[in-house]
Amino acid sequence: MTIHRTAIVDSKAQICEGVSIGAFSIVHENVIIGSDTRIDSHCEIGYPTKLAEGMPLIIGKNSLIRSHSIFYQGSTFGENLVTGHRVTVREKTHAGINLRIGTLVNIQGDCELGDCVRAHSNVNISKLSRIGNFVWLFPYVELTNDRHPPSQQLVGVIVEDYAVVCAMTVVLSGVHIGQGSVVGAHSLVNRDVPADTVVVGSPARKLCMAAEIISKDGYQVPAYPWIRHFHRGFPTEKVKEWLKQFPVLQKAKDSSRSDK
Amino acid sequence: MTIHRTAIVDSKAQICEGVSIGAFSIVHENVIIGSDTRIDSHCEIGYPTKLAEGMPLIIGKNSLIRSHSIFYQGSTFGENLVTGHRVTVREKTHAGINLRIGTLVNIQGDCELGDCVRAHSNVNISKLSRIGNFVWLFPYVELTNDRHPPSQQLVGVIVEDYAVVCAMTVVLSGVHIGQGSVVGAHSLVNRDVPADTVVVGSPARKLCMAAEIISKDGYQVPAYPWIRHFHRGFPTEKVKEWLKQFPVLQKAKDSSRSDK
Amino acid sequence: MTIHRTAIVDSKAQICEGVSIGAFSIVHENVIIGSDTRIDSHCEIGYPTKLAEGMPLIIGKNSLIRSHSIFYQGSTFGENLVTGHRVTVREKTHAGINLRIGTLVNIQGDCELGDCVRAHSNVNISKLSRIGNFVWLFPYVELTNDRHPPSQQLVGVIVEDYAVVCAMTVVLSGVHIGQGSVVGAHSLVNRDVPADTVVVGSPARKLCMAAEIISKDGYQVPAYPWIRHFHRGFPTEKVKEWLKQFPVLQKAKDSSRSDK
Repeated sequence: MTIHRTAIVDSKAQICEGVSIGAFSIVHENVIIGSDTRIDSHCEIGYPTKLAEGMPLIIGKNSLIRSHSIFYQGSTFGENLVTGHRVTVREKTHAGINLRIGTLVNIQGDCELGDCVRAHSNVNISKLSRIGNFVWLFPYVELTNDRHPPSQQLVGVIVEDYAVVCAMTVVLSGVHIGQGSVVGAHSLVNRDVPADTVVVGSPARKLCMAAEIISKDGYQVPAYPWIRHFHRGFPTEKVKEWLKQFPVLQKAKDSSRSDK
Repeated sequence: MTIHRTAIVDSKAQICEGVSIGAFSIVHENVIIGSDTRIDSHCEIGYPTKLAEGMPLIIGKNSLIRSHSIFYQGSTFGENLVTGHRVTVREKTHAGINLRIGTLVNIQGDCELGDCVRAHSNVNISKLSRIGNFVWLFPYVELTNDRHPPSQQLVGVIVEDYAVVCAMTVVLSGVHIGQGSVVGAHSLVNRDVPADTVVVGSPARKLCMAAEIISKDGYQVPAYPWIRHFHRGFPTEKVKEWLKQFPVLQKAKDSSRSDK
Repeated sequence: MTIHRTAIVDSKAQICEGVSIGAFSIVHENVIIGSDTRIDSHCEIGYPTKLAEGMPLIIGKNSLIRSHSIFYQGSTFGENLVTGHRVTVREKTHAGINLRIGTLVNIQGDCELGDCVRAHSNVNISKLSRIGNFVWLFPYVELTNDRHPPSQQLVGVIVEDYAVVCAMTVVLSGVHIGQGSVVGAHSLVNRDVPADTVVVGSPARKLCMAAEIISKDGYQVPAYPWIRHFHRGFPTEKVKEWLKQFPVLQKAKDSSRSDK
């Protein structure tokens, strides 16, 4: 356990073996930090709020919380959490293992996230969002929760497993994004998106099925489902499972193709 | 008065009774902090700038400034200011009472805000914006100020009382958004919006009158004006005034309605 | 050299004459800070990463890094860098002189920026972006790098000299934005933009040539190329060069014009 001399750690915080806490960081009471987790400088861990109703903040083992991040009491994270800088996560959010969120991500509380979710920088996840496993959210994605802002009847968004929401897209309150679907960049999603479908535009409408998109990277194989070819950072067992699930694709041999 | 032992507070700052200042925060000279205000950790209050022309930063009583926030010299805030984390407010901005701004809000200076304004997280308010009373700005709203970027002739946006601007909307320089109007999410507002009107799209065009939107929350009453049914966090006297202003609406009793 | 008593500065960091380092800031080893540079409070300078492959962070002389900013090892900046608050710059990014980036700008690493680039607040520059000289990026501009997110074949955006990208615009991976072009606010750029052209919309399409836009500021001169009339903050020699390059435009004398 390595606590920087300038860090302020409450004596009632439960800090496991191998944890390090950086300079100018604050760890409040009612916090449980799993073993071998690293917390960088200038963080505030376990920010007190009555809305947490006394529940602790639990951060799983082998996690990395980068500098200037803020986590409230009352949320829980499985092992191998990795964050960028200046993330904010409020109370009563529960996430599975292997969550990775980029710099400036804001999770507003009362959210559920599955395993292996990925959010790039600047994603804003409103209260009551429900996010499945292996979901990707790209920069400036905004998941909303109010059908008639401002109102008292918040309704979160649901994003199913393996779905991809591209940059600067707004998903309106109550929308259900189906498994394996892809939402193009700069879209406004105002109705449900069926599974394995690509939608784009403002408002977003169906472009094609996800499997119809051919990769421009030279191999000319389908770009989706992405789990066939993208494995970086995911648990080894999960990747093995995926590789069994899909037949090996033959690379196209068309030498006339113009893209490299 | 509770000043954390690690906080750095200039002896010339004027700090009233009941104020608390958190760990690793800095309070510069030329700052007046009203009574019973709480300033969290890692803040910088009264950031010096020549542009403030020697004017002080004044923060009203009973305010709460959450951690990692930065306020410049030369701006003034009425009582009951509440901020999220990491807000930035530059010089010569003047706001009324009961301003609430979310995490990562950026107010660039030389702005005027009325009473009881609400800005959710990640709102960017450019220099010279003029915002009335009881205005709502949702995440990633961008109020611009330059008709031919980059130019030297900045012209701010005007947003009138009770207007609502939804998520990820850009309002172009010089646009006037009328009282009680509603701008839909993911819109580009390139012309004035008349009072009590709903506009949506990129560019935003009229959809209907605000009063024509019926709430999907099961009561089937008009969703606007929102002041009829949303009162959380506003001063009690103001809410009483509103309740007198509007006749009580009968809830619809149509049992065949499909939305809950 | 003025290092605040609370700052933590590694003894192996190379800090030139006249540098000041603010309260609660951290300077790691493998950092070179040029003379007369000011680093504000709560910063982290030289954040270690294996991806920097041992290369130092070099910050040119006469720079100003505002509070709560984070710079990784392995990037280099010419003289007169000025940042807003809470910027993040990752490893292996190389920028010329006179870069100015606003509050909350995020540069993700492996980027090239020319001289005198301007990025307003909240700009997100993805890995592998290539940005020329005198480019302007306005708030919430997102330069992407993945044609089939998520994939392993990242392709950055290219923005040529003097181009202007307005607020809340997404530029898709691999797009080439030509010299002197202007991209309107709230656009999605999904194909190359020719030089000196204005494009707008989602997806962005040609509106006119840049030189056809007449300024609304009362002078009725062409608004572009902007370098004819906007010089603030640029090196004096450069401005002199520009002024020689363009004939002096006569101000229009049409008294019937309706805009002020």
